[in-house]
Amino acid sequence: MRTSQFFFTTLKEAPADAEVVSQKMMLRAGYIKRAAAGIYTWMPLGLRVLRKVENIVREEMNNAGALELLMPAVQPAELWQESGRWEQYGPELLRFKDRHQREFVIGPTHEEVITDAVRRDVKSYRQLPIHLYQIQTKFRDEIRPRFGVMRGREFLMKDGYSFHTSFEDLKREYGNMYATYSRIFSRLGLRFRAVAADTGSIGGTGSHEFHVLADSGEDDIAFCPASDYAANVELAEALAPANPRAAATNTMKKIATPGKMACSDVAEFLNVSLENIVKAIAVVGEPDDGNKTFALLLLRGDHELNEIKASKIAGLTNLRLALESEVEEYLACKPGYIGPVAVDGKKVAIFADRTVAAMSDFVCGANEAGFHLSGVNFGRDLPEPEVFDLRNVVAGDPSPDGKGKLEICRGIEVGHIFQLRQKYAAALNCAYLDENGKSQIMEMGCYGIGVSRIVGSAIEQGNDERGIVLPTAIAPFEVCIVPMGYHKSEAVKTAADELYAQLKTAGIDVVLDDRNERPGVMFADMELIGIPHRVVIGERGLKEGQLEYKGRQEAEATMISQADILTTLKAKLCAA
Amino acid sequence: MRTSQFFFTTLKEAPADAEVVSQKMMLRAGYIKRAAAGIYTWMPLGLRVLRKVENIVREEMNNAGALELLMPAVQPAELWQESGRWEQYGPELLRFKDRHQREFVIGPTHEEVITDAVRRDVKSYRQLPIHLYQIQTKFRDEIRPRFGVMRGREFLMKDGYSFHTSFEDLKREYGNMYATYSRIFSRLGLRFRAVAADTGSIGGTGSHEFHVLADSGEDDIAFCPASDYAANVELAEALAPANPRAAATNTMKKIATPGKMACSDVAEFLNVSLENIVKAIAVVGEPDDGNKTFALLLLRGDHELNEIKASKIAGLTNLRLALESEVEEYLACKPGYIGPVAVDGKKVAIFADRTVAAMSDFVCGANEAGFHLSGVNFGRDLPEPEVFDLRNVVAGDPSPDGKGKLEICRGIEVGHIFQLRQKYAAALNCAYLDENGKSQIMEMGCYGIGVSRIVGSAIEQGNDERGIVLPTAIAPFEVCIVPMGYHKSEAVKTAADELYAQLKTAGIDVVLDDRNERPGVMFADMELIGIPHRVVIGERGLKEGQLEYKGRQEAEATMISQADILTTLKAKLCAA
Repeated sequence: MRTSQFFFTTLKEAPADAEVVSQKMMLRAGYIKRAAAGIYTWMPLGLRVLRKVENIVREEMNNAGALELLMPAVQPAELWQESGRWEQYGPELLRFKDRHQREFVIGPTHEEVITDAVRRDVKSYRQLPIHLYQIQTKFRDEIRPRFGVMRGREFLMKDGYSFHTSFEDLKREYGNMYATYSRIFSRLGLRFRAVAADTGSIGGTGSHEFHVLADSGEDDIAFCPASDYAANVELAEALAPANPRAAATNTMKKIATPGKMACSDVAEFLNVSLENIVKAIAVVGEPDDGNKTFALLLLRGDHELNEIKASKIAGLTNLRLALESEVEEYLACKPGYIGPVAVDGKKVAIFADRTVAAMSDFVCGANEAGFHLSGVNFGRDLPEPEVFDLRNVVAGDPSPDGKGKLEICRGIEVGHIFQLRQKYAAALNCAYLDENGKSQIMEMGCYGIGVSRIVGSAIEQGNDERGIVLPTAIAPFEVCIVPMGYHKSEAVKTAADELYAQLKTAGIDVVLDDRNERPGVMFADMELIGIPHRVVIGERGLKEGQLEYKGRQEAEATMISQADILTTLKAKLCAA
Repeated sequence: MRTSQFFFTTLKEAPADAEVVSQKMMLRAGYIKRAAAGIYTWMPLGLRVLRKVENIVREEMNNAGALELLMPAVQPAELWQESGRWEQYGPELLRFKDRHQREFVIGPTHEEVITDAVRRDVKSYRQLPIHLYQIQTKFRDEIRPRFGVMRGREFLMKDGYSFHTSFEDLKREYGNMYATYSRIFSRLGLRFRAVAADTGSIGGTGSHEFHVLADSGEDDIAFCPASDYAANVELAEALAPANPRAAATNTMKKIATPGKMACSDVAEFLNVSLENIVKAIAVVGEPDDGNKTFALLLLRGDHELNEIKASKIAGLTNLRLALESEVEEYLACKPGYIGPVAVDGKKVAIFADRTVAAMSDFVCGANEAGFHLSGVNFGRDLPEPEVFDLRNVVAGDPSPDGKGKLEICRGIEVGHIFQLRQKYAAALNCAYLDENGKSQIMEMGCYGIGVSRIVGSAIEQGNDERGIVLPTAIAPFEVCIVPMGYHKSEAVKTAADELYAQLKTAGIDVVLDDRNERPGVMFADMELIGIPHRVVIGERGLKEGQLEYKGRQEAEATMISQADILTTLKAKLCAA
């Protein structure tokens, strides 16, 4: 492609209302154009990137044995009523009536449509398993669309749905998709993590999210650089300390700590580390059986309570923090000075985090306003507690897979795989006849990739002060040729045209900047739009048969002989 | 692809509500599945065909210099209000409100969105011309969706829009698109015609429709088999007869024709041919200036009046048939016996069709109830008339390009190119600065192809009692291998697997029917779904190194040696 024949429009500044870097840069580079809030036109430059992402996704899905189909954007309300989601879904489900006053939705997802198709076509176990997917435009009426294509209203998704005769076979395909998604994001050239996710309201039992790592991500992810372990911080397991509890060396003392209620204040006042302090968090579990439990959760002073983990303790279902009145009722003490010593074990349950269980000679509240205890030890000053994993992991914690230490990063969710089991198949009676001629409900998995969102998140991950930095696999062009004086020097023009033809013949996705612009403008544009490899052709170099090569992220250019340029570029593209 | 790994579901019978052959066959073959009225899922088999069409369209558009982009399906109402179409469009424009009560449409077309994008990005004549297109899902809320994908509500279209600094440049691109569309439909393997079309309400000045020829088409097309001339019957020019008017041989006589008012009755009664009768049609033109014209239009007895042509005669604007009272007022005669002889030329205008002007010794009404005249001749019995092309062409008429005789056929519109001129550009103030720094409104063209409709119309054109007959370029698979006893004979299985691998390696789009079905079932399925080339592998043939080849439309199979099969298939595919 020549820039003179392309629709090439870069902006000096992004619109004022652009919030995140990918949105600003995509607008500046002419990747996208806003049509309405959360609704964008993909301009020719951006569409090249979107299609490259789409094609990699499609190739890998096909290689994995999934079959592509295309479901409609507009879906009849009846199917949503049948699944129950017509009522469950909020206003982000766009509903409308057609000219005959029949109700429809613009699909944000296609579980109902695909399940309806499969129940009509699949009769026998011999037709299973089947995995059908599409790459299709979806609409979700976000209350506050933002971040450009990262949280738009109209967006492109790959959504796949698999159907099985058994949970075992669903798990096999789930594993197949886990591997396929890993291949896809690797081929896209992105730094990513597959993260064990809380399945939340989707109703399935197994689920992984795929996150592109970027500082601007909305999710905290704990991962192990030495292995492929990764999980949302809320779900990552905090192992017990490797070293056993040290023996007690101090006696327990009551110390006046007037006005010192926060752990950090107590630590400073007593001149001890936060790691020597045990904080007690009073909570109440209210299981549906009505048996209320008041409990103290013990955590090390610098650790954070993980409510998801705590709520899994028997009796602590529907966990909430205790009210001040409840604290006074059960402990006869105001909050701020409460602690686990000398507590009535019949009224108050005590659960210690694994880290706390390994502490000795620690400081904790005295259950008396204005006082703390020091030199406290389990088994001597208070009973041995029940021990659970109660906290969020922190950087430096051992990885649960035993392969190193955890780090914490931020990620952008771009893929999600679910074991839906029979949620939709049961609601829509999607059944087959088994080997014995008996009707059985299918097992079902679903697998999504946010195709347009990947473009935004790739730019969140890859950018610098000059613009977009994309992996070669999804850059709008792989190589740009920038001639210095295309319209002035016959030698430069000839060399540029010849190199352009040569690279095209070699199958390289190349753009020749043949605009009559100053070199600075052309360099800035090619950097802004994210071309990973640049060849500059100038008269001086040509006299010695030399061209200038520079990678998008390299500080310095290097001179390469005209004879070697193709080989050099091919090597760079292969390595990318 | 192996059928065992494909989602392959054919039906014995089409649903009862399917109306046309393509709809029935697409449902039976498992190409599509109905999701709601006029809304379909493209199943894996049908999607293969749709994508092949889409890819050919995309390749040729790119080769023609157009640039692909992707506009949103959901469009803000403001743009439609600005162009005036918010009011002009009927209920087939689907309008809805989002959760913030802002109005939107699901786009049936994208003139507004593209013109808005271009007016924001294009500032200078140096950025023009530009041609932007997309292949995108559209929605039109048809009051009565029918014929499957031929007139659905949700459908896939290629729509392109070009912007120019001059009408001349628009015409150049229009010619480029005319040639490009011709290439596209040729590559698709369809019999088609480019047809000069009435631009109607779209507001442009030049327009061609591209029709796939099929008996079930809704439009009548006149075309010349010996050239590329084609036009809607309403617009095709009827030339004057090649032979000059013969000399008068009879004298004019008044003949009683009681109760014979229709031409066919008169011809039978007088025992003359319809080609000897001139019928006079009384019409009234009511131009906006208020000067009413009463006229007799003279046509040969077997010809049909073309009102579009007649209404272009000065004075006959807003043409309508004359009322009985007007006929009596101007001719003092009841309709049925009116004619051009002895008429007051000051009150009644007489316009003769070209064919009539070349007639002599003809029969016409006598302007007296119950009587006709015979042996009538222009210049003797009545003045020479003004002559126009007033009739619809009929089969056998000379082609207007002088290259043969016209035939009439039916067509399905699958493409349409328009010279929109400044209709939208002016409404949305889509302007650029010319060489002199003066602001000018752009000239605009638009170019549509009904991508999903092409699949339906290709099947309307290509089908037989056994199912779908598609050109190789868009068939779901190019070749099928049908082994006789894949699950019983090791030799057959080996030969089938080897041939399958061989064809795949050669880049042939092949399907191996490895289902454990009877040969009859496999043959019927492969014919139903429209695979153009079939290779049957059986034990008996293998013993002699022979395979059986049969083209989808061939009556008999031929035996081909295993050594030659690849060469033979390649030749067939090249020829297709």
